[in-house]
Order: sequence, then C-alpha cells, then structure tokens
Amino acid sequence: MLASTAMVLLMVPGLALFYGGMVRSKNLLTMLYMSFICISLVTIVWFAYGYGLAFGKDVGGTGIIGGSHFLLTGISPGQAYERIPTYVYAAFQATFAIITVALISGSIAGRARFGAWIIFVVVWISLVYAPIAHWVFAPSGWLYRWGVMDFAGGLVVELNSGIAGLALALVLGRGIGFRRHEGPRPGNIAFVMLGLGLLWFGWFGFNAGSALTDGALAARAFVSTLIAGSSGMLAWRLLEWIRLRHLTRLGSASGALAGLVAITPSCAFVDVAGAFFIGAIAAMVCAYAVEMKLVLGYDDTLDVAGIHGAGGIVGVLLLGFFATGELRGTAGLFYGGSASVLGKQGVAIVVVGVYAFVATHVIGTVVDKLFRMHMTQEEQLRGSDEAFPEA
Amino acid sequence: MLASTAMVLLMVPGLALFYGGMVRSKNLLTMLYMSFICISLVTIVWFAYGYGLAFGKDVGGTGIIGGSHFLLTGISPGQAYERIPTYVYAAFQATFAIITVALISGSIAGRARFGAWIIFVVVWISLVYAPIAHWVFAPSGWLYRWGVMDFAGGLVVELNSGIAGLALALVLGRGIGFRRHEGPRPGNIAFVMLGLGLLWFGWFGFNAGSALTDGALAARAFVSTLIAGSSGMLAWRLLEWIRLRHLTRLGSASGALAGLVAITPSCAFVDVAGAFFIGAIAAMVCAYAVEMKLVLGYDDTLDVAGIHGAGGIVGVLLLGFFATGELRGTAGLFYGGSASVLGKQGVAIVVVGVYAFVATHVIGTVVDKLFRMHMTQEEQLRGSDEAFPEA
Amino acid sequence: MLASTAMVLLMVPGLALFYGGMVRSKNLLTMLYMSFICISLVTIVWFAYGYGLAFGKDVGGTGIIGGSHFLLTGISPGQAYERIPTYVYAAFQATFAIITVALISGSIAGRARFGAWIIFVVVWISLVYAPIAHWVFAPSGWLYRWGVMDFAGGLVVELNSGIAGLALALVLGRGIGFRRHEGPRPGNIAFVMLGLGLLWFGWFGFNAGSALTDGALAARAFVSTLIAGSSGMLAWRLLEWIRLRHLTRLGSASGALAGLVAITPSCAFVDVAGAFFIGAIAAMVCAYAVEMKLVLGYDDTLDVAGIHGAGGIVGVLLLGFFATGELRGTAGLFYGGSASVLGKQGVAIVVVGVYAFVATHVIGTVVDKLFRMHMTQEEQLRGSDEAFPEA
Repeated sequence: MLASTAMVLLMVPGLALFYGGMVRSKNLLTMLYMSFICISLVTIVWFAYGYGLAFGKDVGGTGIIGGSHFLLTGISPGQAYERIPTYVYAAFQATFAIITVALISGSIAGRARFGAWIIFVVVWISLVYAPIAHWVFAPSGWLYRWGVMDFAGGLVVELNSGIAGLALALVLGRGIGFRRHEGPRPGNIAFVMLGLGLLWFGWFGFNAGSALTDGALAARAFVSTLIAGSSGMLAWRLLEWIRLRHLTRLGSASGALAGLVAITPSCAFVDVAGAFFIGAIAAMVCAYAVEMKLVLGYDDTLDVAGIHGAGGIVGVLLLGFFATGELRGTAGLFYGGSASVLGKQGVAIVVVGVYAFVATHVIGTVVDKLFRMHMTQEEQLRGSDEAFPEA
Repeated sequence: MLASTAMVLLMVPGLALFYGGMVRSKNLLTMLYMSFICISLVTIVWFAYGYGLAFGKDVGGTGIIGGSHFLLTGISPGQAYERIPTYVYAAFQATFAIITVALISGSIAGRARFGAWIIFVVVWISLVYAPIAHWVFAPSGWLYRWGVMDFAGGLVVELNSGIAGLALALVLGRGIGFRRHEGPRPGNIAFVMLGLGLLWFGWFGFNAGSALTDGALAARAFVSTLIAGSSGMLAWRLLEWIRLRHLTRLGSASGALAGLVAITPSCAFVDVAGAFFIGAIAAMVCAYAVEMKLVLGYDDTLDVAGIHGAGGIVGVLLLGFFATGELRGTAGLFYGGSASVLGKQGVAIVVVGVYAFVATHVIGTVVDKLFRMHMTQEEQLRGSDEAFPEA
Repeated sequence: MLASTAMVLLMVPGLALFYGGMVRSKNLLTMLYMSFICISLVTIVWFAYGYGLAFGKDVGGTGIIGGSHFLLTGISPGQAYERIPTYVYAAFQATFAIITVALISGSIAGRARFGAWIIFVVVWISLVYAPIAHWVFAPSGWLYRWGVMDFAGGLVVELNSGIAGLALALVLGRGIGFRRHEGPRPGNIAFVMLGLGLLWFGWFGFNAGSALTDGALAARAFVSTLIAGSSGMLAWRLLEWIRLRHLTRLGSASGALAGLVAITPSCAFVDVAGAFFIGAIAAMVCAYAVEMKLVLGYDDTLDVAGIHGAGGIVGVLLLGFFATGELRGTAGLFYGGSASVLGKQGVAIVVVGVYAFVATHVIGTVVDKLFRMHMTQEEQLRGSDEAFPEA
C-alpha cells in the first residue's frame, strides 16, 4: 500500500515530463514546475485541513463536507481504515489530490503566470477538490451513500480535472498559438513517452492501490489497467488510420491515456472484455472530443477536457453497462443490472461536472482579477520560461 | 507481487530510453516507439490467447502448447496460482512477453519500417514466444517436466530474444552505418544511463518477482541480481582496460546488462560467490561476443545477440556449475551435482535456440516480403524519424 | 521490503540526473557516471566485507567495528533479522552505502578525475562508511548502545556525506568556475527535476523501509517524508522571496532536498506538525548554509555540505526537540523529554562529523597524491566529458 502511494507520487514527475515535452521548449520548465509545486502546496493543505474536509466526520450529516481530523489530530499512527493504517490512507489520498490539480495545468499551458497558479492551486484544492472527494469517496458522502460507483477517481480525479481545466481555459482565453492555428508543437517527444511510462506505472498504484487490502480486487484492477491502456492506444491509432490515413506519435500516447482515464472508475468492477471495450471506446470518443476545441473555439491546450473530461464521462457511464457485479458494486446493464445504475452514474456526472465548472470558473476569475493569472501576448511570445525566469 | 509486475513494465520505458539513446538522434523516436507499442500489442494478444497458449491446459499432454483460458475465461479473480491470484500471474507473465519482443528491436535499429514491425510483433509473440514459454515455464511443458531450470527467463526471455534478434538482423541485412564501419553512434548517453537505471530497477521485479510468494527465494534472487550486474559492469571495464588501455562509457552499461542477463536464469539458485562469477564471466564472454558481428559480418546493431543471446547461454550453462541446490532446483557440478544437469541445460539451449532462429527467420522473411520491413538506403540516410514521421 | 530496497537503488539514477543536470553540459556524462559506478563498486565491496564490518559480530565488544559474515557466510537465505530475511537487510543497507558515497561526488563536480574517484569510493566505503554505520545502525555499535537515535541515516548518510564532501572539496581546491564567481550553471534543469522526483520516490523506500516490518512506524515515516519535503520546498521559496524578491528554479529543488535530508533521522519519531517544522527550519538553515562557501571560500560545488551536512545536523538536533516518544525512541524536549536526548544527539554529530572529516581528508589527500585526483585548469576548461572521454 505504501508502495502504491509512492508510485502515485511518481506520476507527478511523469505528468511534468508528459506536459513539459508536449509544449514548445520555451515553456518547458514552467510546465515542469507547475506540476512539481503541487506536491508541496497540496501536501501542506491536505494534512492541515484538506483531509479533514474530505474524509473527516461529516458536518451535520448532510454528506456535503467533513470537519474533523485537521492536522490528522485524533488519529493515532496505529489506527486503521479497512486494515490500512489511516496515516497511509491519508497519504494515498493526498497523492490523488496532487495529481488532480496538476492535471489542470495542461489546459492553460503557456499562458498562465506561475505566481497566480500557486494561489489557484491552494484555493481550488480547498473549495473544489475536497468537497467532491467527500461526496464520492467518503462513506458518509451523499453520492457515495446514494450508491454512485467510482472505484479510483473517474469522477473525483478525471472528470473533475477535465471540467476544471475547461473552465480555467475559458477564463484565461485563447493563447497566441491557438489563434494562429499552430497548436502546442511538442518540444520533446522523448519526454512525453517517458512521462507516459511513469504515468502508467503510477496508475497501477492508483488503481490497484484503491483496492486497499483486497487482493482479488487489486488483481482485477491491475489487469484492467493494463488492458484498457493498451486497447486505447491501438483504437486511437486505428481511428487515425481510418480517418486520415496518417498516424501521429502523440496519438499513441493520447489513446493510452484515454483508456487509462476511462478504466479508472471501473477497473475492479469489469472483466477482461469489459476493460478492452472501455479502453477502446474511450479512445475513440476522446479522439473526437479533442477536436471539439477547434469547432467551439476554446483553447484546451493539452486536451485536459478532451481526454480527462470526456474519458472520465465515458468511463463513469460505461460502468453502468459493463460492471459485472461479481466482486463488489452493482451489476451493469450488460450483466443483468438495472438502468438505475446507469441513471445514478449519469446524475453524478452532471452534479460533479456542474459544480466543478462553476466553482472553478469563479475561482479562476477572482484569481485572475486579483493576481493577473493570464500572460500578455508579448509574454507568451517570449515564452513563460524567459518571461518569468524566477519561477 | 503487483509491485513486481509494475516494475517489470517500467522496464519498457527503460529499454526505450536505453535503445533510443544508443542510436543516432535521427532514429531516436522510432526506437522509443518500437518498444512502447509492444505494451499495447502484446497485452491484447496475451489476454486474448497468448496466456492460454503458454499457460493454458496442455493440448494432448505433449507439453508442446497450451490451449485453454483464452480471454482468461475459466479463471475467477479470486483464484490463485501458488498463492498468487492467477490474474496477477497472467499480468506478470504479460510483462515478460512485452519486454522480450521489445528487446529484438535493438538488433534492427535504424533499418526497419514501423508498420511492418507491428505485424512482426503480433506474429512472433503468437508463434515463437508463447510456445517457448509453455515448454520452459509451464509445469506441463516438456522442458520443464524434463527438469530444465530457468528461474526468470534465461531461455525464454534472454536467449530467445538474442537469437531472434540475430535471425531478424540477417533477414533485414546490414544497415548503411555497418557498411561504413560507423556503428550506431549514441545520440544521448544520458538516456542510455537513465534507461539502464530503470531496467535494473525493473529487473529486481523480474527476478525477485519470479519467486512468487517464497520470501527466502526472493531475497536470494534480489541479492544475486544486485551482485551480478555489479560484477559484470566491473569485469567489462577491466577487460577493456587490459585489452585496449581505453574505457568506453557504453562499456559499463553493456557489462551491467550482460551480468543481469546471465543471472536471470539462476538468480535464486546461486550464492554470493556464484552470482559474482556468473556476472563477471558473462561480461567477459559478451565483450568478445559483441565483436563477432564485425568478424562474421552480421549487423546486430545494438548487440541483442551479443548480450542477450550470449549472456543467456552463459547464464543457463553456468547454472549447471554454480547451482547450490540449497533452496530449490538441483545442485550443479561445483556443488556435488551431476553432469546431467549441465547436459539438460545444454540441450535446452540448442532446442530453444534452433526453434527461435528458424521460426523468426521464416516470420521475418514473410513479413518483409508482404509488408516490406526493410528501409531503403535512402530512407536510412534520412533516418527513420523523418522518413516515417507518422509512426 | 524488497520494493523499498529497489526504490532506494532508483535513487542512484535519480541522483545522477539531479547532479548531471546541475552542472554545465561539458561535465554531464562524468557526473552521471560518478554516481552509476558506485552501484557496482560498493555492491562488490559491501557483500565481500563491508556488510561484515558494519553489521557483523562486534570485534572485542567495543562497538567500534564488526568482523564476521564476510561474503554473507554464516547467513542462510531463510535467516531473518527482525522478521526480514537477512539477505534483504544486507541488500537494503548496501543501497544506503551506495547513495551515501555517490552524494559526495556533488562537492567535487567538474574537477575530479574519474579513475581516482573509483579508488576513493572503494577506500572511503571501507574506512569511513562501514565503521560509522556500525557505530550508529548496528545494535552492538557504541553510539547505538548509548541511545543515539538515527532512524534512517541522518548521521550515517546525510551528515557523513556532507562532511566528507566538504573535506574532499578542500583537498581538491577550488574549481575554475568558483574562482570566476560563475557557479555551476545548470545545463539541464529538466533532468534536475526528474532526478528530484526519482530521489523523492526512493526516499520513501529509504525512510519507510527503515521501519522494517512495523506498519505503524512505516506509515508515520512515510507521511513525515511527504510533509517535510513539501514544507522545505515552500520555506526555501518563501525565504528567497523575503530576502531577494526573486525566486530561483533550483531553490524549490534545494528546499525539498533539505527537508528530506532533515527528516531522515526523525521521520518515524515525529508527528505531522513536527515534520512540518523540521522540514521548514532545515530549508531555512540550509538556505544560509549554502552561502557559507562564498563567505569562507571553499568550493562545495553542488552544495553537499550545505544541504546534506547542514540539513543532517539540523535534523539530528531537532529530533531532540520534536521526538514524541510515542512509537519508539525517547521523547524530545517539546514532548516532556530531557535535555540529555539533545545532548547525546549533539555528541553524536561531533563524533561522526570529526571522524568523517579527518578520515576523508586523509584518504582524499593520499588518493590525490598517488593517482592525481584533481583536474588541471586546462582540463576543467575543456570539461571532464571531453578531457577524459574514455570514462
């Protein structure tokens, strides 16, 4: 379990390289640092009060927010949560919060000031991440109690970061690359691939670690994670080939990522065939979803909404079809389950999506007003590494 | 055990960087992708039917090939194989198949078309890897039943990939660099070293994980892996110094790799001194073996045959001398064992080597005829990254 | 536990990248190799006699040095040390020795010949590391018996490497960059950050693994490691901002490192608040400590003394204040403990520091005399990679 937690933390340098390699070289270091700084900011927030808000004793029994265990007070190091020391569980959940907010940086790559990003991260974890984690992950959370299934973060991590990325992208407006139809020409594809490797490695910790001490659950989660990432990679390439007779190196990475995103909420609930189809369907949907920004004109620079948002929605919904109900959770439509499972998953998507969008839009607007989050055109031209060499 | 599996999977980015850094910059991305794509291709093949061919119920009791558990049907997630969930065991073995075929790409670096490589990978896993894994690793396999020892893949992974690399190198002919006596000038030695670091890290998962739940066996495998890689690194450097009064940076990496390769089949069966000598002897043999390509004129570009082939043979044979017979397996010649152990190891090398060579040569020839696997001289000059930018 | 050991070993490529990225490009490869070669050199020394000197049966009962179990003789693979196979424990401790001596290379970056470095490593491990490890880590060591607390190596790893680095820096004199007030302009900050990520990942193995099989201890060590690295990163940046109104990219990395260093001796003994303050205080002290080289004029190029030396001292001393005495060890001053705890920690710092300094200075001087360890000005100008291309 500690190994899983360390593996999830390794996703941060993985994501840093993944994003850093995707942007032009002039923004590389800033992208790296936007991920890295999340480790320290979120850790301090999390152990100070974030864990308490998300997993503390529910305030008033409404399932909206927790309110105890600040600074981990009242938790002895020997105390256990489902046979895992609570300390370890808190650390494991800290790494989830870190990676979620770091993901958002992809949608504003190359046009956000680093100082304002620091403020945004602290506020967003407190007001958006912690409540949603409480609703979905905490046994006293209202969506959890209602029966919504989210094994390892399809709602809390993927959908949440994707929608938040979209909202923040809208607040900051389009970057100069987008206006010129240039896109974020990748500066270092080797870093992208190494980053994907570290992300995938960490994802095993993410998904299998979410089984806590249940070996069979972890085994299934592990296998699903391997299969869905693989089928996603192949499906994306296949679609590129069919549509364009042309493959792109980033397509493999995007496809694998889409598959991994979509399997996150369902990895322990589906069988081999289910994992295969969830990965493949998600990759195909995301391949179209990433093009929506060109149609609708929002600058989701590194496709956080297109991959994590769309992939998260697909994953959470497909769970309503493919869940076998074998090990834990309820069976989906294809396995004799009722449509109500699917309905609850859909409602959860809407609730989490709307809250993440509105709250992030407000936070982003306020932070931009107070601390100027956006970079000027001139700064974007010089690149964030040179324009703000100090951070 | 899940951690071991994830560690082995991290060998793929490790190998990608190791190979990618060794070739000229113009072939870097293609080399990276030739490793990465194996994750998705082999995973899908493996869970569809590869695992069934290798570890399914033996067809006809001949020990030649398995034939059940396709799509993991008939295996419940809770089911165990030697106290490991079978699901986890299947995933662990999947990572072995992935890394084995990825290794082959080193011997054809810079002169193979990516599209044809995809076809080759799928066919080779089905027709070469799966049967050999059945013979050696499955308790119903004929070499296993006959008493051949191969703890973590000296035959199935190392010898197999080395000989297959040799066969494929012969099919594709010499690259332009070889003809000009230029060799594959390393474009990024930092990547080579980082790749070696990740490979070594993963190798602990590979070797210690092969002990499944036996702690003492895993401990010994771990220590042997550390020692043999170290003695290999030092022995190679020493030999360079003695022969040439000149060290090369790649020599350290090659020596460590040779030691790691050679200890793979024996890591749990030998003691500290045995691990030291196996690593050192393997490095010295491989240091000569990699020069055979210059003598005999085949273009084993990144020395897959020279390191994995020769190192695998050395390791499998030395097991017949150094096995202590203490924890599991039979004692070797130096520990009071009989020569028959050595004889069986030798027969296994010949059988696996001949099959791997012939089958790979046929597959490579057919794939080259049907899908033009080789690159033209002009394409090689431009480099695979630019000649085939789409993949 | 095996996973922890493998994670610590991954700190070596982490450190290699961290240091390699910090120096000018002309010294990159040599820095990488100075770390990597430690894996093989120290492993061989360790299993031959280093482990026996450090953890073997005490010679004469004085607690000065061990003297049995050379080549791991007398240890069966099944034998356990606190429920961990002794083989695994020996391998775990081997990785500590490897990383400690590799750390020293930072203080002589860009001005040491690789060949002489090899000699230094072997001698230093034998004469400095092994005895100190015996004093502090072995239950029969004299500092251990006296009650000095050092959970995961604040004295043995951090203080030791920092002081040894200082001594060796004095032996080799100032590099040309230092004389020109140029500093070691970082050639590749992306490598620095990736290296930090791998170091932090490995540090969890380092600190949590030191708990051996005690889950509660490991959980606390893990959480403290996360928090102290984070508070260190933020504190360093805050101090930069207050003093200079200017942040540096390396400041984040240095701050995180300082926090990690300082929490090493105390990670399992302190609570959340203790970890926070130890990380923050250490970062602030180290931020001043790294400037001492400019005041006093010694060339501690990559701040080994400034971070590991100073951070180690801070961590070992603060343990005397912040130890809760809850799980293991004695309570510190802030938790009702006596000043004698603090006194013993102080004495241990002096004893270990003086021994490490004197012994390293002597070893360095002798090695420099016999094998010319220092590079000439002209060689430094060309850079170590080109001046000594062979190593």
